[in-house]
Amino acid sequence: MDKEYIAERYKQIQDGICQALEHLDGKASFAEELWTRAGGGGGRTRIIQNGAVIEKGGVNFSAVHGVLPDAVRRAFQVDEQDFFATGVSIVLHPGNPFVPIIHMNIRYFELNDEVRWFGGGIDLTPHYIRKDEATYFHRQLKDICDRYDTSFYPEFKAFADRYFYIKHREETRGIGGIFYDRLTPAKTSLSWEQIFDFSCDLGNGFVPMYAELVNRNRDRQFTEAHKQWQYLRRGRYVEFNLVYDAGTKFGLETNGRIESILMSLPPHAGWAYDFNPEPDSEEAMTLSWLKQGVDWLAQ
Amino acid sequence: MDKEYIAERYKQIQDGICQALEHLDGKASFAEELWTRAGGGGGRTRIIQNGAVIEKGGVNFSAVHGVLPDAVRRAFQVDEQDFFATGVSIVLHPGNPFVPIIHMNIRYFELNDEVRWFGGGIDLTPHYIRKDEATYFHRQLKDICDRYDTSFYPEFKAFADRYFYIKHREETRGIGGIFYDRLTPAKTSLSWEQIFDFSCDLGNGFVPMYAELVNRNRDRQFTEAHKQWQYLRRGRYVEFNLVYDAGTKFGLETNGRIESILMSLPPHAGWAYDFNPEPDSEEAMTLSWLKQGVDWLAQ
Repeated sequence: MDKEYIAERYKQIQDGICQALEHLDGKASFAEELWTRAGGGGGRTRIIQNGAVIEKGGVNFSAVHGVLPDAVRRAFQVDEQDFFATGVSIVLHPGNPFVPIIHMNIRYFELNDEVRWFGGGIDLTPHYIRKDEATYFHRQLKDICDRYDTSFYPEFKAFADRYFYIKHREETRGIGGIFYDRLTPAKTSLSWEQIFDFSCDLGNGFVPMYAELVNRNRDRQFTEAHKQWQYLRRGRYVEFNLVYDAGTKFGLETNGRIESILMSLPPHAGWAYDFNPEPDSEEAMTLSWLKQGVDWLAQ
Repeated sequence: MDKEYIAERYKQIQDGICQALEHLDGKASFAEELWTRAGGGGGRTRIIQNGAVIEKGGVNFSAVHGVLPDAVRRAFQVDEQDFFATGVSIVLHPGNPFVPIIHMNIRYFELNDEVRWFGGGIDLTPHYIRKDEATYFHRQLKDICDRYDTSFYPEFKAFADRYFYIKHREETRGIGGIFYDRLTPAKTSLSWEQIFDFSCDLGNGFVPMYAELVNRNRDRQFTEAHKQWQYLRRGRYVEFNLVYDAGTKFGLETNGRIESILMSLPPHAGWAYDFNPEPDSEEAMTLSWLKQGVDWLAQ
């Protein structure tokens, strides 16, 4: 299982996800942009806009290699000069405020035969949190994790809670999900092949999981007030991505492909001064759930 | 001229600006929120929303003191424990896309009798750049600067070009203006009193300068396409403030008052994937001017 094989499988996962999302959306289709990286490698950026469900989204594949930028070498605390990295990265912003924003990333990073790892995660950001949907989402993630190692879900769920946190707002970005990094056989009971298969299962499980949440909500009626609330929640999403997200910061600092990196930002977002929802409203309920450590499976 | 006097004058400047802006807007008025800082001091946050001209804006005064946070001590490379800081900070987002976004800040920082300085700046972010208006704006700034030191304008203009730069977009935030920091008699031909007067002149010159630009454009008709372009430009403003702005980063890292810090963000902003305006359009013309080092007075 060499790096070319991993990249090829990830590329197929991108293909499968794009096909399935077009089918789910039913109206819009992806526009593809191929790009090459001056230092080595390239990618396929695929953007979908103004769909029946998805207002703006991207499903990106990249496989890049070359000389490791100094900033990365310092961040990773390694001496290696050359690197290889491949992955699939997704953010979808739906138009209907009752359909949640979703993000997924699976990636593989390699410096040499000894120093390599897998990373990734899936997290959900509902504009309106519904307990049954949050439970459904976490249950799906736990099921995938449990096929490989029963310690994965609790560990990766806790990591997502820590990672997807907007410190200055004292709010989580959404209801979390799972997040893992630097996964290797030495840190798990699994072989390289099994860790890779785990990442592929997440990739392949992405659309079925999201389709369920889309189909439950895509036809729900909403008002202008619901839409304004969606803009505010998207504003928080922007704050997280620009202030905290490691991938975004890394991309901006290393002259990454800006349009691919910032495809994660919503089509429209809003900010109001010190907005506080009515007590006991759906909006207030949502805010009350944006905490770390909620056990969604026990709800 | 002690720190209490400086704070008092800055407070009066806030009062004058708010009054004059309400008069200029003609519809909305400021809502005030008083706040105190746990570590010492406090401020007056004043927000105006949904006006005839200003869609969302803030004119904030603060005077805080106490123990210098570790992060600041490191950033400033000083050993002092106690600090005092006061200033007025403004960001105005107009509704009409032909009226520019404006930002101003004047501030004074003191550790002890030896270590203290003034800082500040004004910069303009037109959604649509017009040369004559950019020239007008820079001419006003130069006139204020020249009353004190003819080296100020070229030096502070160059500083603003460097500072208000969105590196990952290779774009300036707007047409710049002036920016200065750590200004002391040792670095200029001026006394403390004169440096302070300079900052007050900027504060007092703010509304007349902006009123001219507002009144030239407030009644211009605009289309939905102009509005969408405004959202994209505001998106860039968000990117600058969350990724680069020193004051914002500093505030977020030191548990500043979040709503006051992020009042600089626009009411609505947008992102489109890889949007490129039509060649020779007003939008393309605007992009072509978003470069460092443009000599607006020579245009």
